[in-house]
Amino acid sequence: MIKIETCLTPEILHLHQLEGKIAVVTDVLRATSCMVAGLNAGVKSVIPVKKVEEALTYAAKGYVTAGERGGVKVEEFTIGNSPYEHMEEAYHGKSICMTTTNGTVAIDAARKSADQVVIGALLNVSSIGRYIKEQQKDVIIICAGWKGNPSLEDTLFAGALVDQLKDEVEITDDATYMALSQYQSAKNNLSEVIQNHASHAKRLSGLKAQNDLAFCATEDYCDVLPILNGDEITIK
Amino acid sequence: MIKIETCLTPEILHLHQLEGKIAVVTDVLRATSCMVAGLNAGVKSVIPVKKVEEALTYAAKGYVTAGERGGVKVEEFTIGNSPYEHMEEAYHGKSICMTTTNGTVAIDAARKSADQVVIGALLNVSSIGRYIKEQQKDVIIICAGWKGNPSLEDTLFAGALVDQLKDEVEITDDATYMALSQYQSAKNNLSEVIQNHASHAKRLSGLKAQNDLAFCATEDYCDVLPILNGDEITIK
Repeated sequence: MIKIETCLTPEILHLHQLEGKIAVVTDVLRATSCMVAGLNAGVKSVIPVKKVEEALTYAAKGYVTAGERGGVKVEEFTIGNSPYEHMEEAYHGKSICMTTTNGTVAIDAARKSADQVVIGALLNVSSIGRYIKEQQKDVIIICAGWKGNPSLEDTLFAGALVDQLKDEVEITDDATYMALSQYQSAKNNLSEVIQNHASHAKRLSGLKAQNDLAFCATEDYCDVLPILNGDEITIK
Repeated sequence: MIKIETCLTPEILHLHQLEGKIAVVTDVLRATSCMVAGLNAGVKSVIPVKKVEEALTYAAKGYVTAGERGGVKVEEFTIGNSPYEHMEEAYHGKSICMTTTNGTVAIDAARKSADQVVIGALLNVSSIGRYIKEQQKDVIIICAGWKGNPSLEDTLFAGALVDQLKDEVEITDDATYMALSQYQSAKNNLSEVIQNHASHAKRLSGLKAQNDLAFCATEDYCDVLPILNGDEITIK
């Protein structure tokens, strides 16, 4: 039986063994939602980097750059981290180099030892579920959280994924059970729960950000499986 | 309004500011449940220490010693970490020096900068709630967890405490909201939820441990407020 565990923040990732496992990295608000939505719309690949300086070297080579620090678009970048920006036609067929406060840090931590790194968001949660059932490998869900602390929206993604798999996996830690139970009590009004209770939602203000939030809370908007190959995330 | 936050594991305590706050430390299975039950029964004080070696220096001075490593009683100690042992008449009026895998580590982390350190368990959750309402100071709930990872039973304690205070506090992080919602969905069958889903419960086997577990899941068994004064925990 597939074993599944959840790391609620990269800050405690060192307590987990990643070797031989599929790492599902999520940052629902909004890094991995941007990646999923962009790749689904036609973006060729996403290159996640940890630092703004690294992204700027890609910019110098003509790449599209995207991302934020502390929730604010980096001035020199082409776009920020609204999923709608990542879906724009101008970037179809292009590679986007992206760095964010939490999401790309989590991807970087995962890539060092996991067998595979796949990119999850509520937008593509069923695609991830189906892929895990096919692969029959142990799974660790890595939530990006917010500056080292757990976040509600990422925990809800973990719960949504476990909910899909619950008859076929063995839950090996309390965080996974708690994520599942959190999701089960919120699943009929995910968008409202995130809107009203996620501290990240309180940091986002304005109509544009509210639209992003509602979009990122949509389960199964699309059927794509973004996976890290070398330095690039592409659709499998 | 009182601000309340929750640290699901001491591993991320460095991300929290403790200065000026009441730190409520919990390790439901079983360190803080032992302290609460023992002090309520008549134990004079509990001296929490981080290391087995420190406890042995207290043993040499004639103190009662208690605790475990990895869930197993330390051989040289007087008693382990069953709350029933801590309640025995033999220890009434005595001071117990205690060290455990997770609980006393969390107390040690809290004492360095919090304004006050109080000891919470499901057994005395209402006493803690009343004390916080009296004090009107900001609160951080520190869950001992298990070897750095969050644990279900400690998260449920956090939720139970927040549930008591929810009309009088401002929740400032996602962990607190998640703990509250976890508790609210489990509160009618806390003992069964812990028994069936806490990984710690799976590590405890045998009738004695099952009795401990059911006891530790009892809300408001007693009305005591253990607080750290210098090196000793006594009832306020």
